[in-house]
Amino acid sequence: MKAVVITGLDGTWEVRDVPTPSPAPGQVLVRVRACGICHNDVLATRGVIPFPSVDPPVPGHEAVGEIVEVGAGVRTRAVGDRVGVPWIQGGCGSCDHCRRGLPLTGQTAFLCAAPATTGFTVPGGQSEYLVADAAGTVPLPAGVPDELAAPVLCAGYTAWSALRTAEPRPHDRIAVVGIGGVGHLAVQFAHATGAETVAVTHSPDKHAAARELGADLVVGTGAELAAAGGADVILMTGNSHRAAADTLPALRPGGRLVLAGIDLAEPFAIPPGPLPFFALGQRVLGATHAGPSYLAEALDLVARGLVTPRVEVFDADRVADAVRRVAKGEVRFRAVVSYPGRG
Amino acid sequence: MKAVVITGLDGTWEVRDVPTPSPAPGQVLVRVRACGICHNDVLATRGVIPFPSVDPPVPGHEAVGEIVEVGAGVRTRAVGDRVGVPWIQGGCGSCDHCRRGLPLTGQTAFLCAAPATTGFTVPGGQSEYLVADAAGTVPLPAGVPDELAAPVLCAGYTAWSALRTAEPRPHDRIAVVGIGGVGHLAVQFAHATGAETVAVTHSPDKHAAARELGADLVVGTGAELAAAGGADVILMTGNSHRAAADTLPALRPGGRLVLAGIDLAEPFAIPPGPLPFFALGQRVLGATHAGPSYLAEALDLVARGLVTPRVEVFDADRVADAVRRVAKGEVRFRAVVSYPGRG
Amino acid sequence: MKAVVITGLDGTWEVRDVPTPSPAPGQVLVRVRACGICHNDVLATRGVIPFPSVDPPVPGHEAVGEIVEVGAGVRTRAVGDRVGVPWIQGGCGSCDHCRRGLPLTGQTAFLCAAPATTGFTVPGGQSEYLVADAAGTVPLPAGVPDELAAPVLCAGYTAWSALRTAEPRPHDRIAVVGIGGVGHLAVQFAHATGAETVAVTHSPDKHAAARELGADLVVGTGAELAAAGGADVILMTGNSHRAAADTLPALRPGGRLVLAGIDLAEPFAIPPGPLPFFALGQRVLGATHAGPSYLAEALDLVARGLVTPRVEVFDADRVADAVRRVAKGEVRFRAVVSYPGRG
Amino acid sequence: MKAVVITGLDGTWEVRDVPTPSPAPGQVLVRVRACGICHNDVLATRGVIPFPSVDPPVPGHEAVGEIVEVGAGVRTRAVGDRVGVPWIQGGCGSCDHCRRGLPLTGQTAFLCAAPATTGFTVPGGQSEYLVADAAGTVPLPAGVPDELAAPVLCAGYTAWSALRTAEPRPHDRIAVVGIGGVGHLAVQFAHATGAETVAVTHSPDKHAAARELGADLVVGTGAELAAAGGADVILMTGNSHRAAADTLPALRPGGRLVLAGIDLAEPFAIPPGPLPFFALGQRVLGATHAGPSYLAEALDLVARGLVTPRVEVFDADRVADAVRRVAKGEVRFRAVVSYPGRG
Repeated sequence: MKAVVITGLDGTWEVRDVPTPSPAPGQVLVRVRACGICHNDVLATRGVIPFPSVDPPVPGHEAVGEIVEVGAGVRTRAVGDRVGVPWIQGGCGSCDHCRRGLPLTGQTAFLCAAPATTGFTVPGGQSEYLVADAAGTVPLPAGVPDELAAPVLCAGYTAWSALRTAEPRPHDRIAVVGIGGVGHLAVQFAHATGAETVAVTHSPDKHAAARELGADLVVGTGAELAAAGGADVILMTGNSHRAAADTLPALRPGGRLVLAGIDLAEPFAIPPGPLPFFALGQRVLGATHAGPSYLAEALDLVARGLVTPRVEVFDADRVADAVRRVAKGEVRFRAVVSYPGRG
Repeated sequence: MKAVVITGLDGTWEVRDVPTPSPAPGQVLVRVRACGICHNDVLATRGVIPFPSVDPPVPGHEAVGEIVEVGAGVRTRAVGDRVGVPWIQGGCGSCDHCRRGLPLTGQTAFLCAAPATTGFTVPGGQSEYLVADAAGTVPLPAGVPDELAAPVLCAGYTAWSALRTAEPRPHDRIAVVGIGGVGHLAVQFAHATGAETVAVTHSPDKHAAARELGADLVVGTGAELAAAGGADVILMTGNSHRAAADTLPALRPGGRLVLAGIDLAEPFAIPPGPLPFFALGQRVLGATHAGPSYLAEALDLVARGLVTPRVEVFDADRVADAVRRVAKGEVRFRAVVSYPGRG
Repeated sequence: MKAVVITGLDGTWEVRDVPTPSPAPGQVLVRVRACGICHNDVLATRGVIPFPSVDPPVPGHEAVGEIVEVGAGVRTRAVGDRVGVPWIQGGCGSCDHCRRGLPLTGQTAFLCAAPATTGFTVPGGQSEYLVADAAGTVPLPAGVPDELAAPVLCAGYTAWSALRTAEPRPHDRIAVVGIGGVGHLAVQFAHATGAETVAVTHSPDKHAAARELGADLVVGTGAELAAAGGADVILMTGNSHRAAADTLPALRPGGRLVLAGIDLAEPFAIPPGPLPFFALGQRVLGATHAGPSYLAEALDLVARGLVTPRVEVFDADRVADAVRRVAKGEVRFRAVVSYPGRG
Repeated sequence: MKAVVITGLDGTWEVRDVPTPSPAPGQVLVRVRACGICHNDVLATRGVIPFPSVDPPVPGHEAVGEIVEVGAGVRTRAVGDRVGVPWIQGGCGSCDHCRRGLPLTGQTAFLCAAPATTGFTVPGGQSEYLVADAAGTVPLPAGVPDELAAPVLCAGYTAWSALRTAEPRPHDRIAVVGIGGVGHLAVQFAHATGAETVAVTHSPDKHAAARELGADLVVGTGAELAAAGGADVILMTGNSHRAAADTLPALRPGGRLVLAGIDLAEPFAIPPGPLPFFALGQRVLGATHAGPSYLAEALDLVARGLVTPRVEVFDADRVADAVRRVAKGEVRFRAVVSYPGRG
C-alpha cells in the first residue's frame, strides 16, 4: 500500500510503498479515506516534541475510513463500519493505569507505560490502510463527509474538550484566543452552545472569517477584550502562553482560562502581586482530549450541521506540499489529505 | 479609647488615645476583646500592599468583641451579641457591584468602587472599640474563646475557602504547602474533613507540629510529595509562587492547586513544553474569603473542637513587639492581641 | 392612591382608594407602572395557598416601576431608578436565617421566621405606589418595556432558576413540560442557551406557538418524548405532578427532572420496582427563585432580545376581569396590569 | 467443580457438580475463594426481580478469587492476579451502548442489549471456578482478606457510589437510612470521609452497632433526624421508599436524598402542596454502581483499614442455610460463602 513516511528528523513527508498490515486480535484494518494534518505532526517531524518511534514513521492521528477486516475477538466493530482513529488509540494493557480500566483520554499518553498513540508509537493514518485497536476507534455519524470528519478527531476533539472542561454555564460569555485549526472550531462550538462568543485574534485578516464562524464580537488583544467587558471563559487554542496570559485581565470574576495549546518556549505566568487572580476566584485549567463521549458530542454537532470544519483538501501525492504549507502557517484552518483509492 | 496606630509608612505600631467612635445608621459599635495580626498587616505597614487609607491608620481585620451599641435601622444585630469583624466589611452601596446585591467576599475589595475593608479603608480592630457595618459582622458560636475565634476571621477563613474552592471529593488526598498562620489551620481543616493530609514544609522544626495538627505525612519538597504519591489537592498558603510551582509535578491527574497566598515578587509559572498540565487536566485556582457561609462553617468546626488555632497572645501594650515578631517570622502560627478592658 | 384589594377569601379583585404609603428606613417608594398576575395570586385568593396576611390584601409580586422616594439609610437605590419588586423582598432581620446574612431566595420564605413576601405578608404591587425593602428591589436593564419586565420577576425568574438548577451542559437536550406563563419563557431560555429544545404540551393549539418560541420539536406526552429520544433535562413548569412523572421514562441516563411548579393535590411519585431511576443515575430537583444573580441574568437575556415574554396587558380598571381570565386559563401566557398614572 | 445452583423459581440453593468452564478469548478463569450473598440474590430466587437466565442458574456477584487461566488476547490480567467479579461484567459488545465504548456501570444493565451480569445472565460466583470477561474483573489491593473484599464488590460499591453521587462537600452532615448490608458500610464510608454521620434505624438493637461503625448520632425516624438538625445528605440504603420519604422533612436546604435501594411495592413520593421541596432546592438522586474508579476507591478505603465489612462466613456446604438466613433477615450485615478448595 501507499503510506506517507517521514524521511527522518526534520525531514520531508514522502509517499512510499510499504507492506499492507494485518489486524492482530483485538484490532481492525481501516481503509483510510482522509486524514487531517495537525500542527503537532509538524512539531514531531522537527523533533520539538518526540519524533515518532514507530518504524517506518507514518504520521497522522485524524484518520477516517472504513473497516475492511477485523481481528480475532473483535465484537464492537464490523466490516463496513466507518470509523475515526484519533490520537490515543490504546494503552499497553498491563501497566497500573491500564489494569484499572480507565477510559482513553489524553492522560493515557502520560500515565500509561507504553501507550499506543496513532502516528507516534504505532502507525499513523496518512496511509491507505491502518491497523488500530478496535477499542480506540470511534463510530462516525452518517452524513459527515470524510474530509470534514477528519479534523474533528483531533482539532475538534481538543476544542470541544476545552469548552466542556470550562464547564460553561448558561449566560456565560466565551472568548476564543487564536482562530486557527482548533480555534476556528472552538468559535463554532461556543456559538453552537448559545454562548455569546468573542474571537481574539491578532490577524486582522481573520476578523471577517471569525464573524462568519459565529463570533458576536472580534477583538485583537486581551486589553480590548477587557474593555469590551471580558469573558467568563477564555479558551486558549494557540501556541503562545504569552498571548494567553495577555487575556488574564479580561477574565471575569470566577472565570476560567483553559490552556488547550502547547507553548514550547515560554511558561504561562500568573503575575505577582496583590492582583485579583486569587481574590476574584479565577482559574487556569489544562485540557485536551477528555474522553470518547466528548468526541462523540463533537461529531454529533458537526453531523447536525451546527459546526463545520473549514478544510483544504490535498491529494495524497501532494502531502509534502501540504505539510510544508501547514508548517509555514499558510493553511488557514485545517489541511486534510485525501486517500481516494485506486479503484 | 486606646487604639493601635501605625506611625507612618514603614513605621511602628503604637497604642494611642483616640476618640471613641459612634455607630452611624446601619452600623454597630463593638467592644473589642481580641484581634489577630495578619501578615498582610505587616505588608501594609511597609506599603508593599497599599498603606491604610483610613486616618488614623488603625490596623486589624481579625477582631472579636461584643456589640455595645447599635445604630439606627439595625435589625440583625443586638447589644450583647458577640461578633467578629473580618476583612471585607461592606461595599460603597452605590456602585454597580453593590447595586446588584452581591454577597461580601474578597471580590468586593476589587470590584466595589469604594469598599469598606477593615483596617485598610475603615478603622481596624486593634482598638478597644470598633464601628462596623452590621451586615459585615458575623455571629460567633458560643464556647470559642475570643483569642481562638480571632484567627478564624482571616487565616481560618482563607484556609477553609481555599479548601472549599478546591471542591475536594471524598477519598481525595490534600497537601498543604507552608505551615504558618494559614497553613496550620489548612492542615487541621483537611484532616477534619477526613482527607488523607500531607504537610509540605521546608522547616524541619515544623515536622512534629504538622503531625500533631493532623498531617498523615510530612515532606519537605514538591519532589518528595511526588515521590510519596502526590496529591489531588494542593493548598498553597504561603507567600512563594516558586514553592507553589515546585509542587506542580506532584499534582495528580485532575488535581487542583489552589493559590491562597500572595507573592509580591515573582509570577506563578506553569512551565513550557508538552508537559502534563494540559494532558492531565490539572487546574490552578485562586481563592480567598469566599463568602459568609464559608466563614460560618470554619467557625463551626472550631466550635466543635475539630480545629484549634494555635496562638500567641499579647497584651495590647506589647503590640509593637507582637508585630515586630510577626514581621520577623518569629511567631510560629498566629499572634493575637488581647484587649481585656479597664474594668 | 389606587390599589387592587382582594375583597376576601375567594373574593374578587377591586380597585380601591387606600392611603399612599411612606418608606421606612431602608425602604423605597416605587411608582408602579406594571405588575404581572401569577397563578399563585389566584391560589392565594382562593386560600389554596395561604391568603395574604397583609391588610388590606393587595396582591402582586411582579411589580415594575420607578423609585420616587428613598427612606433613611438607603444607599443602593436612588430616586429615578427603575426597579422590579419580586416575591421575596426581605427577611425579618433577626431570626437565625437572617442573622447569617444569607441571600434572598425562595428559601427565605420557608426558613425566615417572618419573611417579607410581596403581596402576601407585605403590600403587593397591584397598586399605584409600593413600599419595598431597598435590598429586595432589583435594577432593571434599559430598553425593556415595563410590561415585558414584569413577568420576568416571577415567571421568568422561576423558569431561569429551574434551567440553571439543572446545570445543563453544552450538548444537553432540554424539554419543557407545560407551555404557559413559566413554560413559554423556559422554552425561550432553553433555546437562547443553545440547547436543542423540546416542548411537551397536551394542548394541540399551542404547538405552533411553541415552535415560534424556539422549540425544535413539540410533542404531546412523555411517551412521545421518549420515542423522540428523550431529554437530558426536563423542566416541569406546570401544576401537575402526574404530568411531570409521565415524562420520567423519557429522562436520559444522568438526566435531571426539575420540579418548578406546585401540585396541590397529588404527590410526585417515582414508581416502585427495579426501574432504571437508580441504575441510570437520574435526579429529581426542586427549584424556585434561586438568587438575585439569576434574576439579573434572566433580565439581561430579555434586554438582549433573546427572550421576549408574551403578555396581555390590562388597564388597572380591568384587573377583576384580568384575574378572572387567568383563573380560567384564558390568558395564554401572562397577564400584566398597567398603572399608567393620572398625569 | 462444585457450584451453587438454584433449584428453580422460589427454590433452594444446592451445591452440585457441574463442568469446570474454560475461558473464551478475552476472558479469565477465576478460582473463587469467597462470594458474598446480596439481598438481590434472594429477590431473583423468588422471581421478584428476574430469575437468572443463565443455565444452570449459579448466583453470586460478589466473587473474589485468583486467576488461574487467561483466554486468548487478554493483556490486562495474568495468572496469579487476585481479582473481584462484580455485578456488571461486560456488555454485548455490539449494541449502540457498547459501540460507544462507555464504562461499565449499573447503566449497562439497562442500556446494553444483552449485558453480562454476573449470576444473572452469565454464571455467578457461588462456585469453585468462574469465567469472567477480563475487562469486567477488578484488581484487589493486598492485605484485604477474601471474605472482607467480597462484600465490597456489591454492597460496598453501592454504598460508596451513593455517597459519591451525593457530591458531599466538606462540613456536610450525612445520614444513612437502614443499617444492613449496604448501610453498615455507608455509615463507615461517611465517617471515614470526615462527615458528621447519623444512622437512622428502626431497630433499637442496632443502635450500639451503628455507633461502633462510626455514627456520631443514631436516631429512629425521619422526625427524630429533623429534630436533631437534619442532614445535608441522606443515603437511602434499604428497601423501603416509605422509610426514605419519611426522612424528606429532615433534608436541609440544598440537601440531597440518594435512593440506592429498590422498593418493589411502593413508589417514592414527594408530597403534594406548597411544600419546601422546590423552595429549598432539595434533590432526589438515584445511584448504583457508578463506575470502576469508585469501586477502586471503596476497596482502597478498606485496604487502609478505614472501613471494615462485618461478615458472617459460611462454608460452601452451608450455603442453603446461609441464603435462608439472609432471606429471613437473620444475617445482620453480610453473609459470605467460603470456597477454600479441596487442596
